[in-house]
This record gives sequence, structure tokens and C-alpha cells, in this order.
Amino acid sequence: MDGRTRETIKAIAGPGNFLEDPEDLAVYTYDATPLPGKTPALVVLPTSSAMLAAIMKVASESAVPVIPRGAASGLAGGFVPAAGGALVVDMHHMNQIIEIDKANMTVTAQAGVVTQALQDAVNRAGLLYPPDPASMAISTIGGNIATNAGGPRGVKYGNTLQYVLGLEVVLADGRILKTGSKCIKQASGYNLTRLFVGSEGTLGIITQAILRLVPLPQAKQTLLVVFGKVAAAAQAVSDIIARGILPASIELMDRKLVNLLEQYIATGFPLDAEAILVIEADGDPDSLAKTIVAIERICADNAAVSVKAAQSDEEADRFWEARRMAFAICSRARPNCLVEDVTVPRASFPQIIEKIQQISEDNQVTTVLLAHAGDGNTHPMILTDVSDAEEMRRVNIVLEKIALEGLKLGGTLSGEHGIGTQKMLWMEQEHSPVGIDVMKAIKRALDPQGILNPGKLWGRAADADAAGGEEQA
Amino acid sequence: MDGRTRETIKAIAGPGNFLEDPEDLAVYTYDATPLPGKTPALVVLPTSSAMLAAIMKVASESAVPVIPRGAASGLAGGFVPAAGGALVVDMHHMNQIIEIDKANMTVTAQAGVVTQALQDAVNRAGLLYPPDPASMAISTIGGNIATNAGGPRGVKYGNTLQYVLGLEVVLADGRILKTGSKCIKQASGYNLTRLFVGSEGTLGIITQAILRLVPLPQAKQTLLVVFGKVAAAAQAVSDIIARGILPASIELMDRKLVNLLEQYIATGFPLDAEAILVIEADGDPDSLAKTIVAIERICADNAAVSVKAAQSDEEADRFWEARRMAFAICSRARPNCLVEDVTVPRASFPQIIEKIQQISEDNQVTTVLLAHAGDGNTHPMILTDVSDAEEMRRVNIVLEKIALEGLKLGGTLSGEHGIGTQKMLWMEQEHSPVGIDVMKAIKRALDPQGILNPGKLWGRAADADAAGGEEQA
Repeated sequence: MDGRTRETIKAIAGPGNFLEDPEDLAVYTYDATPLPGKTPALVVLPTSSAMLAAIMKVASESAVPVIPRGAASGLAGGFVPAAGGALVVDMHHMNQIIEIDKANMTVTAQAGVVTQALQDAVNRAGLLYPPDPASMAISTIGGNIATNAGGPRGVKYGNTLQYVLGLEVVLADGRILKTGSKCIKQASGYNLTRLFVGSEGTLGIITQAILRLVPLPQAKQTLLVVFGKVAAAAQAVSDIIARGILPASIELMDRKLVNLLEQYIATGFPLDAEAILVIEADGDPDSLAKTIVAIERICADNAAVSVKAAQSDEEADRFWEARRMAFAICSRARPNCLVEDVTVPRASFPQIIEKIQQISEDNQVTTVLLAHAGDGNTHPMILTDVSDAEEMRRVNIVLEKIALEGLKLGGTLSGEHGIGTQKMLWMEQEHSPVGIDVMKAIKRALDPQGILNPGKLWGRAADADAAGGEEQA
Repeated sequence: MDGRTRETIKAIAGPGNFLEDPEDLAVYTYDATPLPGKTPALVVLPTSSAMLAAIMKVASESAVPVIPRGAASGLAGGFVPAAGGALVVDMHHMNQIIEIDKANMTVTAQAGVVTQALQDAVNRAGLLYPPDPASMAISTIGGNIATNAGGPRGVKYGNTLQYVLGLEVVLADGRILKTGSKCIKQASGYNLTRLFVGSEGTLGIITQAILRLVPLPQAKQTLLVVFGKVAAAAQAVSDIIARGILPASIELMDRKLVNLLEQYIATGFPLDAEAILVIEADGDPDSLAKTIVAIERICADNAAVSVKAAQSDEEADRFWEARRMAFAICSRARPNCLVEDVTVPRASFPQIIEKIQQISEDNQVTTVLLAHAGDGNTHPMILTDVSDAEEMRRVNIVLEKIALEGLKLGGTLSGEHGIGTQKMLWMEQEHSPVGIDVMKAIKRALDPQGILNPGKLWGRAADADAAGGEEQA
């Protein structure tokens, strides 16, 4: 970034809305992965879409790489700067909930609003925003949209994608695009809203969103189900789904994970179980009661050792709090924890779980099993040390084999974390060269200079430095 | 289309898979609107994606305009050929249901499968494909996807968009693109699946789809609610939704419509009612019973004259059959029936209904009221005669005023019919010049010659003849 561009952008941002000291910039080189990032040249924290639009006009004139950032809680390197000399756009100063519209069941919020803050605000209005990524205490709505974030409730409620009705986006050239509306149905031209969801900051910078809400469920119940074998737990999940039963959440954890959690927090989970399922169902109290009975029966049919219903909201909260801590605690067990996100058609869940265990064992890699089991979304956590080259050679074999086994089962590389840089090696195998070509054509159409988050999705990180030109797209 | 291109395409299609006699071609000049279309040069009915791919390679080499066609039951002119000398691709020979996957609750079907045939097949497997456009007895899955079709069940279940997990698409240049999978969540690159839904044949030709299914509801109940005023019915709908109650369907019909229907079929509807709501709720029997009581109470609070529950499936079917016949019967009342599709945020439903009535009255135009009331989607039907220039002058004023009032209320030009040529005049008002620019950029990226369904969405029909070049995009 040349000096004049830097000074122009700083002048637009104004005091308090930019960072350039080396110790500040260092914070902007990483996310929740151990993937290495480059130090940006400048960080701006815009306070309005108009300010960001003015900044993007300058950045595009000088072809400066621009990397949007929410909370950098991403698990695939989607934020990690691949290009040097970049401008990072930190959205935290745009953190206003603009409107909760009870009659239309929508919330309009700026991209920098923390997910949990939004959840709390809409709950107080008697409404629910279903997506509940485990990182929601720090993640932002903009980041959730950019990665199409999910969470345990995805089984019944789906990903962020299902809740985004409209967006405000600042484009690469500084124009402001508004998509969608508060309408719950629309068949008017191309669905630009859905195109930006999951685009990982490569097509535009999301500044505001209209999100669909649902009524708060009248009742909910959490079950803790213990199994003697991981395979039996996985089969029970598959049977629940095949029977047309739709709990809000079905989480699978293996013995290793349960024991790791117990070292740090009082989970209430049995330590000798080979696998546990934490299942939450919600809805009308009468139908909920029937759902719980049906789930208990299926678990029993799959040789569950015990089925325990949480006796209070506090007990249920303890189970869920432990679940949410899984990644943080696994990150303490070894120097690094790499989380996979491979997702398969729901009926293939038992097979992918078996494959993950086998591949890890074959390569002597420690993999802790966690999964949003009800939607086929696995989150195997590989405990490792990225500074150990020999171990990382084996870890990389495991990562690749898991990814490819997922694709072989008709799955996808990512259910809810995005591709970032972590999974871009296998994108062509998932989408075929035609699919990647079409995605690149769309990227070029919206960002012809390739300045937005270069080196992600399908780019080679090595190319990102020379921002500008198609290769970065 | 030059002679050599024509012969090459005919040779690829083979006998029985093309039409070129004038009387056959004449059938391919219109859809369910009275909008005038141009006679195509040739119609092909491909039997495989590979055949269509080969045809598209030839068509793109000669820059021949290509117009995909399902059942031509569209209500916005989406199929009607705007360009002369076009190749029409009729998808009826690709009408196979390839697989119903009960464990994953998906169906894989070719684009030419008739919607009702797919519904029946998945029902027999104990599953439900929710989208239920009124034309489903003839419409095709491909056409439903291309227009993001809806239907009465949209209130609870959403549009076609919510059910498309993956697509096979033949691109303008003849490449075959496959998107998505049987996974219910995906965060892997741009969501191309959702981009093609609602693209009205302008980005590629949909040949096959993986559709998500849901369990058949255990029970359902239909209510017929009579009101003394249209406004009271509209307010009742708004109150039901605001209370967080989600019936499968809420249909509004006014006195004029009910009386027209009764001339042709025994509806069972009261003929002196100013407005009726036909409401279907479904789900677990216990919670369904509570939902019905809650709906009845809200209707009573809004001065409903009577609330009647259908006493049998046959009676309920009679109500719904009458509803589905609305467009066909209105089309007999005068030479032409134009259906609008303006959709507003749900809480604004009473206002748009009032505006539609007022605008029609002010301009002495006969508008019959029909609406998917629960999702803010109005379907006013304008009874007219397109050969009467003076009347059409007034009709066009009404169409424009309704469209612009809908946008003023934060709505969209189309909830489920698409834009076609009928509504393209107001696209820039809905999406702003930036939105249209972005859509055009995507169009150019996927169809640089502009050969796919030229003159639609935002094109000027007058330009479509000179297919090739950006202006048709």
C-alpha cells in the first residue's frame, strides 16, 4: 500500500477508526486456526457503510488487497491474510441492532453485532434466531453470514443461509448493494442475497443484514444418551432422522472428548461411556413429549446404555455449555487443535464416523470425535503440534483422507465453517473444474481486480501477494 | 438460425426429438399469459443432458437464442419467446424420477417431471415435497425451479428455493455443471444451486435436481372462515402470523372470486361472504388441535362471521380444488386474466390489499382478489381483454400502481411467479441500478453472448431479436 493511499484511507476513517502500530497489526494475522497469516499494512474499523464505501473506492483505485474481518473466530482460515500489505476491514464498530420487527419476525442488524448479543435481544422480544455457532459469544453476524455458519440447532433449523432475507454489501469498487427485503418469498431476478452467504468476503463486504426470526419454542427437553460403541450412537442418529423425527440438535461426543472436557469443567457426562449423544428437542409440549418417547425408543433399540433426561434447565445448560467449550478445551490439550467440517448425506453418518476413526488410527493421529450428528456434519478435532513436521505430515494425510472419504460418500468439504485456505486443495474434487470455473467467473464479474480476500476458496495462497489480476480470484 | 446449424441440431436430437412444422411451432409462442411471443425456428426435446450439451455447443457457436421450456404454465411471460428465430428446448422428454432416497429424504428427478407426478411418487414413499403451485398438475420441476415457484403451502414450508439441494445444469456453452449434493448443509464456495433457482432460464438450462423432502404430516385440518369485510380477513391473517402461529396455508378469496368459481364448480363456499379464508394447518394431532383453536379465536376477534372446519378429507379437497381452479375459471370470465404476484412483508398484507382494491376501483378495472395471505403474497387477477386498447391503458396503470405500492411497502415484484417480461419495467425500482448491474455482470459471466432466454428479467423485449451481445443480457 503506497503512502498516499494509506493517508487517504486514514483520513476517511478518522481518529479511533484505524490501527497501524505493529503490535496492533500483529493481532490481525490469525484466526482460530494455526494457519500462518501475513501482517496487514493497515486496519480500518468503519463506522458506516458510506465510510466503508469511500474507503473501498480508494482501495480499488490502488488495487490494495482488502480482507474483511468479523471476530476472526473462523475455523478454516477464511480471515487469515494470505496477501501481504493488505487493508483489513474490522467490522466491530458497526455493531448496532437497528430494528427488531416483531410483526414481521425479522431483525435488522449491522454486520459487527456479536451473535450472542443478537440472540439475547431477540429472545427478549419472544423470538428466536436459530443459528447458534459454538463461538457465538464472540462471533459476529457478518462473519456468520460470510461463512454460512451453523451450530447444533442446524438439524431442525438449518444454517445461517436459511435466515438471511436481505443484505447490504459494499462491493469491491465501493458501490453499495442492497439485496432482498423483509418478504419471506421472492422470485425477482437472481438471488443475490444467497450468493453472498458463504462467499467468505471474496465478493463484497457485508455491512448489514435483515434476518428472519421464528417464535421461541414453547418447550424444550435435553436428553443425554450413553452408548457402549460409537457406531451404535451413529446408527441411532441415522435411525432417528430416517424415522422423520426432527430434534433441534443431536450432538455426538466420544470418550476422549468427554474425558478432556471433564479435566476442565464439571460436565455431568459419564466418563466411561464410549460415546454420548446430547439431544435437544423443542416445540409444543404435547408433541415434544411424544418426540422424546420416540427418541428414547430408537436409542434403546440401538443398545443405548442409558438415556437420561435433563432434570432442570440448569442441568441442560451445563451439557450445552460443555459442548460449546469442546474446541477451546481441545486447544489446550496439545499445542494445536485442527477441526474438520466434512459433511455427508445424513444416512451416511455412521460410515464417515467409522472412516474417521480408521484413518486416524492407521496414521497414529489423535482425533477426538465431535459431530452435529443429526445433519451429517462431523467435527473431528485433530490434536497436534504444527511445529512438529513429522507429525504434521501424518496429520495432513489424515485431513486429506477424511476430506476425500466425505466426498466419496456424496458429501461436502464444509457444512458450516467455510473453505478458507484450509480446504481449498480439494475444492476442484468437490465441484469439478466446471464448478470452479463458474465460481471464478462470478468472482471476476464482481471483483475484476481480485482485491477482496485474495488467496481463498480456490486460490493458491502463494499467489495472493501479487493482488490484482485473475490469478488471485 | 442458419440451415447448417438447424440440420446439425436436428441430427443430434434425432427423429422424434425435434419439431419444425409451423403448426407445431405455433404452440411454442405463448405461456399462461396473453403476452405475445415470436415463433421459434426449431424446437428440440432432448432425451439426455449429454444430448442437450451437444446441442448447446452448436447453438452457442452460432449465437442462436435458446429458450428453455417446461410446461409453459408460467404467469409472467418467462418462457414466451422474445427473440425471433430461436431454438426452444422443451424438457418433456427428460421426465424420469431417478431416485427416491427415503433415508436421506431426497428425490432426484429430471427437469421435465411433472410436479404432481413427483408429489404422488414421494407421497407413496411416506414423504412430502412441499411446493404446490396451483398449476402442479401440468407444471414441471424444472420450470418450478427456474421461477422459484411457490404455492399455498409456502406459509409454513417456503418456496421451491428451500427444497433444492443440488442441480445439474447445461450452461450456455454446452458444459455440464453439477452443483450441491444430498447434504442438507454446505459452506463450500459460492452457492451456485441457489443462484440458478429463480434465474428463469437466463443462466443455464436445468436438467436435473436433487430435492429435499419432509415427512408427511401426521394430521391436517382445513378451516373455512367467512368475513363481512375483506379488511377484517386480511387483519386476521396478519394477527395469526404475528402470534407466531404457522399454518401450512392461508388463502384469501373475495366475493367476486367465490361467485365466479361457483358458476363452474360446486365449491361449498358461501356466496354472500365478502371474503373467505381457507386455512390448512398440519402437524402432530395434539398440537394441531391447539393451533386450530388459536386460529379460530383470532378469527373471532376479527369479527369472522363463521368458522367451519372441513368435516372430511373430501370436503377439504373440494375447497382446495376450487382454489386451484381460480386462475383457470377467471380466464373464462373475460377474454384475458392477468395475475399479479406482488408480495409484501407479512405485516403489511392488510395495506396492500386495501391499495389493490382502491387502485382497481379508481381506474374502473375488474380485479378479483386472491392471495397466499399468510406470506404476504397477493395474486390479484385482473379480468380484461387485451384487444381493447382503451381498457388496457387503464389495466396497465393498475398493474404499475400495484407494483409500485408493493415496493413502497418494502415488498417485491414477485413472490413466486418470476419477472419474465411482465414485470421487467420495474426491476430497477426494486433492485436499484447497482442491483441490476450486479445481476447483469453475473449474466455476462455465465452467458457472455446473451443467448439464453434473451429479453427477460431486465432486457427490453425489443432488443431480443438481435441475440448475441450484452444488450440482451
